Amino acid sequence: MPSEPHQVEQIRSRVVDFISPPEFVEQLKADRPLRIKLGADPSSPDLHLGHVVVLNKLREFQDLGHTVVFIIGDFTGMIGDPSGRSQTRSPLSREDVQRNAETYRNQVFKILDPDHTEIRFNSEWCSGLGFEDVLGLSGRVTVAQMLARDDFSNRHAENQPISLVEFMYPLIQAYDSVVIEADVELGGTDQLFNLLLGRELQRSFGQTPQVVLTMPLLEGTDGTQKMSKSLDNYIGLTESPKDMFGKAMSVSDDLMWRYFELVLCLDPEEIGRLRSLHPREAKDELGRELVTRYHGEPSADAASKEFARVFSERKLPSDMPVVELRPDCLVDGRIGILNLVSSSGLASSNSEARRLVQQGAVHLADERVSDPRAEVAPEDGSVLRCGKRGFVRIRMPNA
Amino acid sequence: MPSEPHQVEQIRSRVVDFISPPEFVEQLKADRPLRIKLGADPSSPDLHLGHVVVLNKLREFQDLGHTVVFIIGDFTGMIGDPSGRSQTRSPLSREDVQRNAETYRNQVFKILDPDHTEIRFNSEWCSGLGFEDVLGLSGRVTVAQMLARDDFSNRHAENQPISLVEFMYPLIQAYDSVVIEADVELGGTDQLFNLLLGRELQRSFGQTPQVVLTMPLLEGTDGTQKMSKSLDNYIGLTESPKDMFGKAMSVSDDLMWRYFELVLCLDPEEIGRLRSLHPREAKDELGRELVTRYHGEPSADAASKEFARVFSERKLPSDMPVVELRPDCLVDGRIGILNLVSSSGLASSNSEARRLVQQGAVHLADERVSDPRAEVAPEDGSVLRCGKRGFVRIRMPNA
Repeated sequence: MPSEPHQVEQIRSRVVDFISPPEFVEQLKADRPLRIKLGADPSSPDLHLGHVVVLNKLREFQDLGHTVVFIIGDFTGMIGDPSGRSQTRSPLSREDVQRNAETYRNQVFKILDPDHTEIRFNSEWCSGLGFEDVLGLSGRVTVAQMLARDDFSNRHAENQPISLVEFMYPLIQAYDSVVIEADVELGGTDQLFNLLLGRELQRSFGQTPQVVLTMPLLEGTDGTQKMSKSLDNYIGLTESPKDMFGKAMSVSDDLMWRYFELVLCLDPEEIGRLRSLHPREAKDELGRELVTRYHGEPSADAASKEFARVFSERKLPSDMPVVELRPDCLVDGRIGILNLVSSSGLASSNSEARRLVQQGAVHLADERVSDPRAEVAPEDGSVLRCGKRGFVRIRMPNA
Repeated sequence: MPSEPHQVEQIRSRVVDFISPPEFVEQLKADRPLRIKLGADPSSPDLHLGHVVVLNKLREFQDLGHTVVFIIGDFTGMIGDPSGRSQTRSPLSREDVQRNAETYRNQVFKILDPDHTEIRFNSEWCSGLGFEDVLGLSGRVTVAQMLARDDFSNRHAENQPISLVEFMYPLIQAYDSVVIEADVELGGTDQLFNLLLGRELQRSFGQTPQVVLTMPLLEGTDGTQKMSKSLDNYIGLTESPKDMFGKAMSVSDDLMWRYFELVLCLDPEEIGRLRSLHPREAKDELGRELVTRYHGEPSADAASKEFARVFSERKLPSDMPVVELRPDCLVDGRIGILNLVSSSGLASSNSEARRLVQQGAVHLADERVSDPRAEVAPEDGSVLRCGKRGFVRIRMPNA
């Protein structure tokens, strides 16, 4: 294993909270692989670059010789939301959990080393707990400790209801740390409270409290909110090279540097070199590097070339989808523009089609169509374009 | 069954909170025996007159044709205090619980009708609950609801710790109401919150919420704090006729009327008659009536006569204990007064003996001894008296 000062320096990089370096040094003295915990919610298994920020740090631990314990919170996932307040947290079946866990596994191993990763499901130890055990756990924390969590204290202050069950979830997460005897737990900065509660609970069980590390929350492609699937501002690990590249190119010039630092973990020298480039070129490198990591260099080259061809040279993409119109859509070879846009798949509804047309985003054979009532007569092979990135080639029936 | 208005009037008497009379009338319309719940803590099974206030009301329900469901909270009793904060709440064994339950049973049936009483242990339904069930229960209440309880909100406001497990106990008690389908729950006024939580939980389970009745808290013999074993201001149901009578005689003239009303449930006419007597005579009736209820009339007569003889006529009690002094306590037939008082059992320690002597409470052969350093020479048969109620006859060694 590398020396202690080297490990501390390495681990400290990009971290927000580190509680505490002296405790970490103490752990390293034991000269055994540390157990580094990350908890995962099995209800949304699709990983994106926001997760990568944390996974990168786990990978660093592995490269230093430590073991990652990846905990899938299937126990609570299978319960859903017993308060009935959340519409979205419906209980998962055991099959859902298994399927999502498999998805997780495939994605995390794009970054983590499978040989130094333990995957555990917390139903293993939670399902067997009885009422008595739960009371025992509850006796180890105070109401004030729970209300110290920002979102609880804010909601309490604003008289918004907090279900008692919401106090139990951090307790379960903390108990996971006790059971797997975590030495270190990682999370986003929004997890700080939960990670610290793990320390308290471990202490009350007579264990050495885990070291807590939080990583910055990555902003989504919109540049304002944290990257998340529900906000649709994410770049997913399983997205196609084209989408991954295109989304990377859509981030602002400022935000790009966060991605270089937190997702690609470039060192300051490398970042210095990139800063000397034109932002357009630096961003091309961001997109290429991302696609290279998850799809390989040839895909990255292709995505970059294609992007340049379509958006910079304003040429048509080479792999444009072809949509064949149904004969019954046409009357004397003509079709309403809204009908054409939505039946070609460039809008999901007539009202979206209307909006696009009214915004002037719709072109047929390079002619803008901005009247929603227009009837158009496409020729076989005409290109229909919506906005910057939607293209289809029209194929006329029986042509 | 008696008519609804008659039942409502009867039940309303002596009650503090009644939530709510219209709901109770609605329940009576079903024309079946109602299920009247009382929860009991199995850790202190000795009942006293404070409990009688509530038991009297239960008996009234039975006399109106309803069923009492007496719940022994053995589930939590066997857990004790998992927060480890309470020194006194050590977990009970199953044998403790059984023994205490038997004690309870014997005592409550001095007041309740066994044929209309169901005794249940809540471990019956609590022991089988798993973590998942507990989360389900917790999802039915909010943190704000729990913090609404006076003692929680006061402690929270004063930054005193509240263990999360303390939030679980009212929830268990409320769940008991759901399981036994309580129509009415009774308790002291200090139980109002818990009883109301039972209503909320029943409602969330789709049951008709129980009617809630609270009874006044009876002041102990000191006249200030509520009667409780730990404050040693109680009159226990199993105390001897002499102690029961003596303690009754020790209450203040004002407090006596609370006992007549809440424990003996005398009607206003009867109380009017007693108010026309000298308070000393009225209090004698209180003592006689109490002893009669729990030990029969002959014991009451004897206790009253003996009390009168000792305290009013200042004569010595006829059944005075005899204490034989050990030869090695005496030097030339003399003994230090503190040693005499404590070795005769009238004080539990030398320091208590010193206090009694200094207060002027100690008499040997009708002579007050107020110097703690005094050496006295008792004769065989001398009476040693401490305060109003402690007497022993001294027997000298080899006399």
